Amino acid sequence: MSKEIQIYNTLTRQKEVFNPILENHVGMYVCGPTVYGDPHLGHARPGITFDVVFRYLKHSGYKVRYVRNITDAGHLENDADEGEQVIVKKARLEQLEPMEIVQLYTLSYHKAMADLNCLPPSIEPTVTGHIIEQIEMVKQILKNGFAYQVNGTVYLDVNKYNEKYSYGTLSGRNLEDTLEGTRTLDGQSEKKSPVDFAIWIKANPEHIMRWPSPWGEGFPGWHIECSAMSKKYLGETFDIHGGGMDLVFPHHEAEIAQSNASNGCDPANYWMHNNMITVDGKKMGKSLGNFINLEEFFTGSHDKLERAYAPMTIRFFILQAHYRSTVDFSNEALQAAEKGFTKLMNAMETLGQISASENSTYDVNALQKKCYTAMNDDFNTPILIAHLFDGVRIINSVKDGKESLNAADLEQLKTIFNTFITDILGFISHKESSRNDLTNEVMELVLQLRGNAKKSKDFDTADLIRDELDKVGIQIKDEREGSSWEVK
Amino acid sequence: MSKEIQIYNTLTRQKEVFNPILENHVGMYVCGPTVYGDPHLGHARPGITFDVVFRYLKHSGYKVRYVRNITDAGHLENDADEGEQVIVKKARLEQLEPMEIVQLYTLSYHKAMADLNCLPPSIEPTVTGHIIEQIEMVKQILKNGFAYQVNGTVYLDVNKYNEKYSYGTLSGRNLEDTLEGTRTLDGQSEKKSPVDFAIWIKANPEHIMRWPSPWGEGFPGWHIECSAMSKKYLGETFDIHGGGMDLVFPHHEAEIAQSNASNGCDPANYWMHNNMITVDGKKMGKSLGNFINLEEFFTGSHDKLERAYAPMTIRFFILQAHYRSTVDFSNEALQAAEKGFTKLMNAMETLGQISASENSTYDVNALQKKCYTAMNDDFNTPILIAHLFDGVRIINSVKDGKESLNAADLEQLKTIFNTFITDILGFISHKESSRNDLTNEVMELVLQLRGNAKKSKDFDTADLIRDELDKVGIQIKDEREGSSWEVK
Repeated sequence: MSKEIQIYNTLTRQKEVFNPILENHVGMYVCGPTVYGDPHLGHARPGITFDVVFRYLKHSGYKVRYVRNITDAGHLENDADEGEQVIVKKARLEQLEPMEIVQLYTLSYHKAMADLNCLPPSIEPTVTGHIIEQIEMVKQILKNGFAYQVNGTVYLDVNKYNEKYSYGTLSGRNLEDTLEGTRTLDGQSEKKSPVDFAIWIKANPEHIMRWPSPWGEGFPGWHIECSAMSKKYLGETFDIHGGGMDLVFPHHEAEIAQSNASNGCDPANYWMHNNMITVDGKKMGKSLGNFINLEEFFTGSHDKLERAYAPMTIRFFILQAHYRSTVDFSNEALQAAEKGFTKLMNAMETLGQISASENSTYDVNALQKKCYTAMNDDFNTPILIAHLFDGVRIINSVKDGKESLNAADLEQLKTIFNTFITDILGFISHKESSRNDLTNEVMELVLQLRGNAKKSKDFDTADLIRDELDKVGIQIKDEREGSSWEVK
Repeated sequence: MSKEIQIYNTLTRQKEVFNPILENHVGMYVCGPTVYGDPHLGHARPGITFDVVFRYLKHSGYKVRYVRNITDAGHLENDADEGEQVIVKKARLEQLEPMEIVQLYTLSYHKAMADLNCLPPSIEPTVTGHIIEQIEMVKQILKNGFAYQVNGTVYLDVNKYNEKYSYGTLSGRNLEDTLEGTRTLDGQSEKKSPVDFAIWIKANPEHIMRWPSPWGEGFPGWHIECSAMSKKYLGETFDIHGGGMDLVFPHHEAEIAQSNASNGCDPANYWMHNNMITVDGKKMGKSLGNFINLEEFFTGSHDKLERAYAPMTIRFFILQAHYRSTVDFSNEALQAAEKGFTKLMNAMETLGQISASENSTYDVNALQKKCYTAMNDDFNTPILIAHLFDGVRIINSVKDGKESLNAADLEQLKTIFNTFITDILGFISHKESSRNDLTNEVMELVLQLRGNAKKSKDFDTADLIRDELDKVGIQIKDEREGSSWEVK
């Protein structure tokens, strides 16, 4: 087990050695989607980021309980405790029952995550599945004196909280900054201070997602869900809390306040945040026309896209950047990523075909060390991928007879590639996803027929095969060891 | 919209014309899985049965809200309100948190249903997601005087209930029969009568799945979930309640009692029950060694299986019997089903290749009518399939020039086949599932190469192609119109 993983902790603004609370075990909570629309890039990035964290921690020998919630109630249209619950609004627009919306988009989220080869989390709790736990937590916060009730809505009293704890540590804002940045909206007058936020919200008569509570019928405030569910499945304080950087304030700041106000302790020791995504240099937004959902990427069905991009191209592109850097999507960048990915996966196939020599001209041990060092350094996937490309160079050189590897080193290189590419980065070859075993088997026959045609100087047939395959996007590569094929 | 659908109603023991409560709308509730193990044949049958009902009602023009629950808490080891909750027990055995068990087996259930091409239901509510609704219903039943509380457990008072309503109408048992059939177990002494059943159960100290309630910490009785969730999403009385025949007593009987005791009305107008499955003539059971899960069927990895059977073979086999008949699984029966299915799907492909003539020698209109008549007669899929095989006969006769269809009839026959085979019976061809587009495209090239080889009398090559394809399970069929291929 690697004990040297360093994690950049948003809370302390520095990299820290990762020490779990319970030896060999990790509890990780990541904020999941609000299921009222198709999954898009903003879902893909945290999905993939924390999938790699999950995979690497497991590879490092930890038993990981990875909890990612599904927000199926409570999330309002804006952060100021106003507007409609987004799922209720979507249900009204589509004339469906809210839970039909939830079902539709939970399924499409699951499908997109599976396409991207993200492992399912250990538990996927829902807001509606934990109303009681949220009510219990609101009761506790009231009891501890950090909240007040007005007309059936319960607010967390941020000023009161700030007397004992410190509000704003995660986002680095002090209370005055926060106050200045908070719009004073009509209808907020029942709050003692504009910085206070709702932890239980009274349901208006027309509201259909509602539950009985000690304060009348209502629904949970958006932030309380994660506090209640992480506590239930990971305990009052757990190891890692993850999410997108846009959630630092107010969502995660509110979670910290709720946990302290209810349990008297911080919820998580390490806070990890993935950075944001832009499209052609601009923030994604429905009004900007650059809001592309994942299915549109996979099928190429969006004006901005020159063609379809496979899920693995998206995954490679996202992991080519460090999770704390911004990422800009463009056709050029995706096509470059696709080429890089193909080169990497082709080398992995070549690795299965090259033979060992007496001596090695390359230090495989050093490569392995570098790969672990990269991952231990705050999951630095771009550096890891750069090292793997050094491996690609060697593989191709060995194939060309310019370098050599002995049997043990060749085995070790295979282990490195399998471990880091398949297990940790979670890449599947285009071949595995775009062609099944039957295609492989039929293509073997086609390559054999082409070899026979060439041997008997039947060049018409050989050309016919090349041209017809070219039409369907298959390229044949003739090498010293024989012919192989790939999907272009 | 077909207004002539007849449904066999378990409640009245006869077929009745289906009249929905709300014109053009259908509310249907089906009991789903308890997610503590891999999905097996006992899940496949109701899944497929009610998928076809769902598809046919939608095809008939109804807007259908199909609710199928996931039981993720409350289900005890036996029906006598004793033993452990099954998910808690499995969690203890596997050293996981109960909700990790729920996640694992919910995902494997979803995967199996997708493999069987069952459409997802409109809403999939969970027990843990509706604890409050269940508590509210228990409160109402207590308030109405049909339940009593002892030491934190609430029992439905069946004798009291039977004074006003009639307990046992669905299963056709009277109270005396039920009393005789009920074992008097130790620990049941707190019940007023052995026929009473728990609607809320006190949690012992070691119980980890528990929620606060007016009667102390506990969890819902197994039966109350369906009453609470069907009411929430479909109303106090809805159209169709479905499930396996093994659920008639006590589960559905209890649901009827709970709905009457709480809402003063029956929950559903039509009760539909699929019959049971046997394996080699015996009831499925883990101790009998004939308990085969679906993944084992799909991969052939069980001692009792001679080989793998595709999901569509299982689906065809199940639909070849009427849902109210028993079905016996055996290798012979499955292999026969596979042949039948292949014949049907091949005919569907042939249908796309045959040409129209001046005149028709066959009454396509009559065929269409018969197909609808079969489905309207309590969803009689075996009769429907028999009619479709009459269509198969005609398709093959037209291909052989022994019968003919004019252009309009040919179009109509295509519509019938698409409607009933694809949309209603939900069959996908083996080709679509076992080979993707790329295989199709490469195989076209292979057939072309073989044609060229034969033309130039290069029989070595032609034989090579046939033999190599044979090795990978592809059979080439030479016909008047050209060659085609199929996976054997």
